[in-house]
Amino acid sequence: MAPLKIYGIPASTCVARIMICLEEKGVEYELVPVDMATGEHKRHPYLAKNPFGQIPAVEDGHITLFESRAINGYVTNKYKDIGTDLLHQDNFEERAFVAVWHEVEAQQFNPVISPIIYQHFIVPMYGGTADQSVIDANVEKLGKVLDVYEERLSKNKYLAGNFYSLADLHHIPFTHYFMFTPWADVINSRPHVKAWWEDISSRPATVKVAQGMRFG
Amino acid sequence: MAPLKIYGIPASTCVARIMICLEEKGVEYELVPVDMATGEHKRHPYLAKNPFGQIPAVEDGHITLFESRAINGYVTNKYKDIGTDLLHQDNFEERAFVAVWHEVEAQQFNPVISPIIYQHFIVPMYGGTADQSVIDANVEKLGKVLDVYEERLSKNKYLAGNFYSLADLHHIPFTHYFMFTPWADVINSRPHVKAWWEDISSRPATVKVAQGMRFG
Repeated sequence: MAPLKIYGIPASTCVARIMICLEEKGVEYELVPVDMATGEHKRHPYLAKNPFGQIPAVEDGHITLFESRAINGYVTNKYKDIGTDLLHQDNFEERAFVAVWHEVEAQQFNPVISPIIYQHFIVPMYGGTADQSVIDANVEKLGKVLDVYEERLSKNKYLAGNFYSLADLHHIPFTHYFMFTPWADVINSRPHVKAWWEDISSRPATVKVAQGMRFG
Repeated sequence: MAPLKIYGIPASTCVARIMICLEEKGVEYELVPVDMATGEHKRHPYLAKNPFGQIPAVEDGHITLFESRAINGYVTNKYKDIGTDLLHQDNFEERAFVAVWHEVEAQQFNPVISPIIYQHFIVPMYGGTADQSVIDANVEKLGKVLDVYEERLSKNKYLAGNFYSLADLHHIPFTHYFMFTPWADVINSRPHVKAWWEDISSRPATVKVAQGMRFG
């Protein structure tokens, strides 16, 4: 069978999120470049793959999917019995906590870390000037979110419990870039968050994908 | 066994999201009021239920959960075989599309509709003045998101396919309030979106929960 195809570029946080998951599962995939500079993702035929005009999109046989977190749910469901067990589907309670912390990443963490990365790295790439007030407000909010993580990680090695899961993995792409900003101490000053980050960022799957994660 | 407990108020979109799901499943629950006016949700002991100081939290036996979308995943997984089949777990491909449109609601729809509701209803409740520029910008973005929905719903009766799912259900609470704003035409001007909304808002589970969804 042809390998799963990911349309996008490896520097994209949402593409990297899927690649790290596939590496953890040991599932073969092919990265198909999308020429974002010419707006390929905003035109047909790409819009048939992702109607929101964003990367990534994934093709697996006749199935076309988008939204990175949903794709990782699909991958971990399809390849339940190979590679790292990232969902703990066989344990009803553990599965519920993976879902809770999956949503915490999506609803609490992502909305505050993504504007920092956007302002600090992306805006200057396009010749603009970062809006420091947006960065400052979100760095403060991120600290409050991570206070909850610090407490959680003082009692469990990982977010969903004492096992590595999709909930931890989904944090990797934005945190990877965040550690290259002047505000990395928001992570490093919280000992349990720091230890968690050192753990999940040094996993072989993370290290391999992080090599392609550079802006500019 | 004691019924599942939801901590919160029925006017809350995130509380209503869970209640509608439980009504669809026919699962008994108890709503435990949280006195938000005095900040009960920002203090212990409530913070042990939801460390982010938000409603809702859910207790089911010894399990405590938060994040409404994760709770609905838990409920639909636990009560897989009773009530409306909201996940289509037994069909691998349909399950994947439920996940995709679950994330679309969380990542594309929710971030643009929630500021409109917040500015139009919540800010004035606390004596403030709605920021019309925030409303206008998000009404425009919402229209673009719903253009994608219109195309999707011209080919499928519901978002994930020709079956009602959690992906549709998660849109109900914010859309319910949105239809009382001056911008309801964003829904009504798109015929397939309008038909979809009339369908999902008239389901008995929705009608029952919507009775408690009023601000002020």
